Amino acid sequence: MSSEPPLHPTSGLPLAGHPLVARHGSATRTSVRVGDQFVGAGTFTLIAGPCAVETPEQVAAACEAAVAAGATMLRGDLYKHRSSPYSFQGLGREGVEIVAEQRRRSGLPWVAEVLDPAHLEVVADVVDVLRVGARNMQNFELLKECAKSGKPVMLKRGLAATIEEWLLAAEYVADSGSLDIILCERGIRTFEPSTRNTLDLSAVPVVQARSHLPVIVDPSHGTGSRNLVAPMALAAVAAGADGVMIDVHADPASARCDGPQALLPDEIVALGAKLSELGRWMGRTRVCA
Amino acid sequence: MSSEPPLHPTSGLPLAGHPLVARHGSATRTSVRVGDQFVGAGTFTLIAGPCAVETPEQVAAACEAAVAAGATMLRGDLYKHRSSPYSFQGLGREGVEIVAEQRRRSGLPWVAEVLDPAHLEVVADVVDVLRVGARNMQNFELLKECAKSGKPVMLKRGLAATIEEWLLAAEYVADSGSLDIILCERGIRTFEPSTRNTLDLSAVPVVQARSHLPVIVDPSHGTGSRNLVAPMALAAVAAGADGVMIDVHADPASARCDGPQALLPDEIVALGAKLSELGRWMGRTRVCA
Amino acid sequence: MSSEPPLHPTSGLPLAGHPLVARHGSATRTSVRVGDQFVGAGTFTLIAGPCAVETPEQVAAACEAAVAAGATMLRGDLYKHRSSPYSFQGLGREGVEIVAEQRRRSGLPWVAEVLDPAHLEVVADVVDVLRVGARNMQNFELLKECAKSGKPVMLKRGLAATIEEWLLAAEYVADSGSLDIILCERGIRTFEPSTRNTLDLSAVPVVQARSHLPVIVDPSHGTGSRNLVAPMALAAVAAGADGVMIDVHADPASARCDGPQALLPDEIVALGAKLSELGRWMGRTRVCA
Amino acid sequence: MSSEPPLHPTSGLPLAGHPLVARHGSATRTSVRVGDQFVGAGTFTLIAGPCAVETPEQVAAACEAAVAAGATMLRGDLYKHRSSPYSFQGLGREGVEIVAEQRRRSGLPWVAEVLDPAHLEVVADVVDVLRVGARNMQNFELLKECAKSGKPVMLKRGLAATIEEWLLAAEYVADSGSLDIILCERGIRTFEPSTRNTLDLSAVPVVQARSHLPVIVDPSHGTGSRNLVAPMALAAVAAGADGVMIDVHADPASARCDGPQALLPDEIVALGAKLSELGRWMGRTRVCA
Repeated sequence: MSSEPPLHPTSGLPLAGHPLVARHGSATRTSVRVGDQFVGAGTFTLIAGPCAVETPEQVAAACEAAVAAGATMLRGDLYKHRSSPYSFQGLGREGVEIVAEQRRRSGLPWVAEVLDPAHLEVVADVVDVLRVGARNMQNFELLKECAKSGKPVMLKRGLAATIEEWLLAAEYVADSGSLDIILCERGIRTFEPSTRNTLDLSAVPVVQARSHLPVIVDPSHGTGSRNLVAPMALAAVAAGADGVMIDVHADPASARCDGPQALLPDEIVALGAKLSELGRWMGRTRVCA
Repeated sequence: MSSEPPLHPTSGLPLAGHPLVARHGSATRTSVRVGDQFVGAGTFTLIAGPCAVETPEQVAAACEAAVAAGATMLRGDLYKHRSSPYSFQGLGREGVEIVAEQRRRSGLPWVAEVLDPAHLEVVADVVDVLRVGARNMQNFELLKECAKSGKPVMLKRGLAATIEEWLLAAEYVADSGSLDIILCERGIRTFEPSTRNTLDLSAVPVVQARSHLPVIVDPSHGTGSRNLVAPMALAAVAAGADGVMIDVHADPASARCDGPQALLPDEIVALGAKLSELGRWMGRTRVCA
Repeated sequence: MSSEPPLHPTSGLPLAGHPLVARHGSATRTSVRVGDQFVGAGTFTLIAGPCAVETPEQVAAACEAAVAAGATMLRGDLYKHRSSPYSFQGLGREGVEIVAEQRRRSGLPWVAEVLDPAHLEVVADVVDVLRVGARNMQNFELLKECAKSGKPVMLKRGLAATIEEWLLAAEYVADSGSLDIILCERGIRTFEPSTRNTLDLSAVPVVQARSHLPVIVDPSHGTGSRNLVAPMALAAVAAGADGVMIDVHADPASARCDGPQALLPDEIVALGAKLSELGRWMGRTRVCA
Repeated sequence: MSSEPPLHPTSGLPLAGHPLVARHGSATRTSVRVGDQFVGAGTFTLIAGPCAVETPEQVAAACEAAVAAGATMLRGDLYKHRSSPYSFQGLGREGVEIVAEQRRRSGLPWVAEVLDPAHLEVVADVVDVLRVGARNMQNFELLKECAKSGKPVMLKRGLAATIEEWLLAAEYVADSGSLDIILCERGIRTFEPSTRNTLDLSAVPVVQARSHLPVIVDPSHGTGSRNLVAPMALAAVAAGADGVMIDVHADPASARCDGPQALLPDEIVALGAKLSELGRWMGRTRVCA
């Protein structure tokens, strides 16, 4: 009679913890391919753009700045996850053409959130990376559907999720057939009121030791304050993050969502240059397929 | 030009905060009707039963004890929200007949969790109250579908949700057409490792001051330990909770889910008697339609 | 060669964890004698009075109400631990006579905070129980001096202290020669902004299972809001607390410290009656030496 | 009749918040002089050495590595603040000569913790910067005595202290007559068990915007794990910290305190070189008087 652990049905790995996303020994870390780019060890990814898609002009201005800053992917959500049902919920289907236009123009991949399996069909032609937000980290039915879409999934850490639970949520995606997963630290909830969340940068080296998946950082949602974005983005790179994702808005005061944390066009351009320089110092180079 | 706030389209209330679930002044608190019972001010509701539906025998034993304890509703989940994809996920459709049998036998309403709109159809004939778990508190697409089902919705507080966010999540249900909402405090996440979560009983009087909705407490998931369930259930009643929900298992060591927190049949019967006595002391009486 | 653990020098107990304050097996819980009363298993202690000693009239009004409410000890601080150096720091030596007067009049023991070993001499003649506050829980030099004073020590749980750390702090007192220790849960710090702290009532049964020391609850500082004090005080009793400590002020609006959480005279009298009734239902009787 | 706020007695500043440590407008940030060095804006300070002073050989080995790494100050405690009374409490007076020897040899200033005003006399001749630990952040009597000593005070942030409370604690030092204060972020307590604490690097830019005082980071105590120290130290520099403080031990397995977080001599030397390079990139230069 054997006392060995059961095996994972498809991978054949011992079925303990999160075998598919775990880093086994000193195995190389995974790079996730997005278009002709790779996200992961060795590269550095700058994702920038508007928090939410509002108008063609607003998206164009933010994307233009993002491109000038050296962004390798753009962001901009069609669906927003808002605490109140009376807050702006995103343009949904009506914003698809706006995204399509900027994606064509820039030739860059687009990252956007989905809140429901029904959104997958809406974003199918314009979104390259499906983002699952912090509040949906353990919405496993949504994760399974994203996994089956064939598109890479960016999985944000929940506001009160341990790193172990975050990796187990990623394992749901992996077990549903996809290892194209990018983890994103975006701050946890603590007692400190100065920042919207407390960005847990130690999660970056912890994740990289336990998992082969790439991990990026969102200092915009992680701090909630424009003046904290640059220092925390640089800190993320120095901590070893595989990339950062940053909100941009040319007129934050009129933003329909999260204006106080958006960088102005000038600011993202200045930050992009510093991030690029620091990334190279950290041994990160842009690698294309 | 008027500077008055906009009005909620259907209720006509000023559109600030969570107008539909807010308690306006000293207005009476709502009672939610479930079968021929009412949950809310004046009554005290004891919900008991197995954490998960496992086998006909296990469910029967737990329900028999729950009925002997004076439970006015039964619980037992067909779908379990588990951190790991490799943990027991619930019997799903296969467990429906087990629930149906105990529901017939006891004549009591059944409370069970749904994780996905697709589950609504599966549980349609056997579940009387749809529970949305802590990890799905802000899964608003699920909340909207539950609201439209015509069944009461029990909404658990998220692990890191403020009371305000919890009420805003309830407002999503209300704004989707249903005020049959029962809130359930089940512990928040803190640094303390002795308990699975930290049961925040002060949430009970805070919610009752801000909202007209009933609020109950789950000391089983809130503590994670059998020996803490009775003191915290009694404390919940003394704090003014409109009810408690408690896990029961006749053989906790063999439970497929959350065994360490389940009360034994004898224990729930003893606790039921004390809860009933304390509830009466608090001015709570059982009221049927 | 022996592999047995070392022994505690004076008690001879195995030196692991907190041997002096631990509950060994099902050993009886300790009662701490204060004057002619006992605090601990079987009894219920109501401590009430002003947060801070301000004027003779203010202290008299609060104490009169406390006595009418059935308080068995009075409280009122000469030294206040304030976040800001510019806030009222307590009357110190100037308030001693005010305390002496009310203590004589009522014949009840007095509980007050000390912040520094130098305060021990000031309060020597008027304070019966030395309280060490949450922010000083791990100020071990202060704890050692209190232990040596011969007076019982009330030790509040730190704002971010685990229960284990709290018991280890109590062990510092015990190891310095005194087992006359009363633990006091007063809320921990979490992300929830509705309450000043989150009162962790599950700490009561956890402490009682791990330690033989009595444990009381402070719902005034634990919630920070007058309207939450009564429900949480009752909940504390139902959770098994050996007592509660409550702030009283006849004119909270003019209080120099923590006015928003003070009960009015009428309120403490009404609450005292309910606490007494609930205490008896829980099997608590007042026991005098 | 004037409605203006009262004024601080010695500074004449309006008495609101923490006037003495606040940054007024865009005023320059303070540099604190320690020996012939300055800690603050423009410079970068590396403090390294053993967590605790254990033996002459252990301290010598750690200090030799620290010097080789480019440390500008050394650390090593004579008094340790331990959760348990049965843990190693530091050599106290017996360790003074060990410190004196390394201080002479290196010519560098020494940083060490004091737990009690009585320790000030013991460390008077060998310690240049008095450190007040996280658990004593609000031990204001200790802070006042340190302020009066004439030596710079390093004030660690409490485990559950908001940034505002931390600055108010610093104000106690300032109001007692000394502005030679160095703040030190060392991690806050959250629900995450992977790290001993959660290092809150966003505190660095927040403090620098609100206060003129220098702020450094302790990634050793902030993470509790050797393999996280380097990434978090680099992240601290990139976030703008004015310095870092790091534990070193040549034989961590035999350390009497905090071995798992100590860097080996080789590791601190390698890290020192990278910190220096990154510090220069951030515009930091070593400035001596």
